[in-house]
Amino acid sequence: MKALVYQGVKKLAFLDVADVILQEGEQLIKVEAVGICGSDMHAYLGHDERRIAPLILGHEAAGIIIGGPNDGMRVTVNPLVTCGTCSACNAKRENLCPDRQIISMAPREGAFAQYVKMPMTNLVEVPRNVPLAKAALAEPLAVSWHAAKLAFEALHNSMDRHALVIGGGAIGLAAALALPVMGATSVTIIEPNAARRAFLRDHCGQNAVETTDVTYPIVIDAVGFGVTRASASADFVQPGGVIVHVGLGDEKPGFDVRRATLQEITFIGAYTYSADDFRNTAAALFDGRLGSLDWIETRPLEQGATAFADLLAGRVAVPKIILDPWN
Amino acid sequence: MKALVYQGVKKLAFLDVADVILQEGEQLIKVEAVGICGSDMHAYLGHDERRIAPLILGHEAAGIIIGGPNDGMRVTVNPLVTCGTCSACNAKRENLCPDRQIISMAPREGAFAQYVKMPMTNLVEVPRNVPLAKAALAEPLAVSWHAAKLAFEALHNSMDRHALVIGGGAIGLAAALALPVMGATSVTIIEPNAARRAFLRDHCGQNAVETTDVTYPIVIDAVGFGVTRASASADFVQPGGVIVHVGLGDEKPGFDVRRATLQEITFIGAYTYSADDFRNTAAALFDGRLGSLDWIETRPLEQGATAFADLLAGRVAVPKIILDPWN
Repeated sequence: MKALVYQGVKKLAFLDVADVILQEGEQLIKVEAVGICGSDMHAYLGHDERRIAPLILGHEAAGIIIGGPNDGMRVTVNPLVTCGTCSACNAKRENLCPDRQIISMAPREGAFAQYVKMPMTNLVEVPRNVPLAKAALAEPLAVSWHAAKLAFEALHNSMDRHALVIGGGAIGLAAALALPVMGATSVTIIEPNAARRAFLRDHCGQNAVETTDVTYPIVIDAVGFGVTRASASADFVQPGGVIVHVGLGDEKPGFDVRRATLQEITFIGAYTYSADDFRNTAAALFDGRLGSLDWIETRPLEQGATAFADLLAGRVAVPKIILDPWN
Repeated sequence: MKALVYQGVKKLAFLDVADVILQEGEQLIKVEAVGICGSDMHAYLGHDERRIAPLILGHEAAGIIIGGPNDGMRVTVNPLVTCGTCSACNAKRENLCPDRQIISMAPREGAFAQYVKMPMTNLVEVPRNVPLAKAALAEPLAVSWHAAKLAFEALHNSMDRHALVIGGGAIGLAAALALPVMGATSVTIIEPNAARRAFLRDHCGQNAVETTDVTYPIVIDAVGFGVTRASASADFVQPGGVIVHVGLGDEKPGFDVRRATLQEITFIGAYTYSADDFRNTAAALFDGRLGSLDWIETRPLEQGATAFADLLAGRVAVPKIILDPWN
């Protein structure tokens, strides 16, 4: 089959690779759409010690089951494979399973390929009226759905339901879409890039601003740099409020531990989603609660290297590029 | 009246000062016992920009109401004075009141004095069988009670109830006493000082260790240095667990934001207590749920300067020195 293979820092090649070999209980999926994630970019730049070349990246996939009793079923893929038996899995916190694996990280190849394999329990059927390119958004939307859920679980019930999202990339936009479903009465996105701000306003109906001097009960840091942790903790979050930190930008200092202590701020790290979060997100995506999702641009997987270069150079206004392995 | 006055870095003098002048609604309290807090030490070292010399420090007080309808009532003092009308106060989160004041910080003088003034709502009556020197522990115990409460409110219900406390000073020990009341099934204290460890074991019945390689669902950082935030977040807390940060040791980096994100760790800043927390702590103190509280050493307020010097030099094994303004 054909795949886009990460070969080293800023090196991607569209190559013939070995066909997928199924293990017991796995389904073969013909990949129809797969998104480029910030973590793919992180790996592409050689910044992710967990993703070593050569490797097939990509974990935001939707496609069609090939073979077996569900042959032909259109599905979106939960890329997180967990043991199902540990205390975390039993508590429905599969994302904390100590044996968790995600496709695009060894030992599991990713979905920047014509085929990928997954356990059936990781697949959610996509209704006929939902294009697979949009169904592939279930994964990044689930990340933000989970972050928004954690924020509302932690928020003191006396506080207002206004939320600020730092960063207007796919995860930030997805958070802005998930937060109202969870009960947010307003969402503001901070995005320094003017072109991206304009896109968020004009194409996504979002309240995107360059910065703010207002404070919020809920702040979602969808960037995760020292500077965003600093502004989230020192400037943007209200006393007694909640920061959910879903980005992994850098590990620099910035978090204002003194204000966090004196003003009782809760900081929650968020990683992926539970299996229920993924299914609930997919359901919300399918029934329109997460909007029209017209913020994708589809390109051929064959031109994946160019897509990465364009993203890196800031030449892409849309929050998400979806790659198609067959066109 | 006599008072111990902070006059500048490491300078304390026992002096005659002006008598207390009551405002409307305030009670005059004859101070019988007042504890030395880590934050008093912080101010004494000139490290607290909020506490400027000359100032009477001390906020852990118990005494006797003088005058008025409650003349002679034995009371312990909630030193946090709040507006009572803002959204935080209405939500019973008085510690987040934007107009909060605490005695020992301008404009309110502290309780290292023969008298102090407080609103009646800040006073909790002490039963006859409880010595005022122990009743003065209500304040530090309430700090830790509140921290323990926040930890259990945030803890996922699937997790075990084992807790680790970093630091065996008064706040750490108080946390170790409050946590079982909240439902902790075991508590371990990490304390690097061998003499203090021995005291915690032999006199307080605590499981005090030098360090541990076990992880815990709940970690209370009762120290608040960069190094303790580092070990709490990188080493001691379990995936999906909770760190409550109640110390204000320094503002150095250390918090492991990457692990916190990948392992969904919740970090909660804790500051003082609500009015209900203070009353609930006092009730638990009075009815014996917080133990015999035999971990205090009483000295004359007149010798307060020596007490601070001894604490600074590490010559004090007990977690709490109580000063008596009348002996």
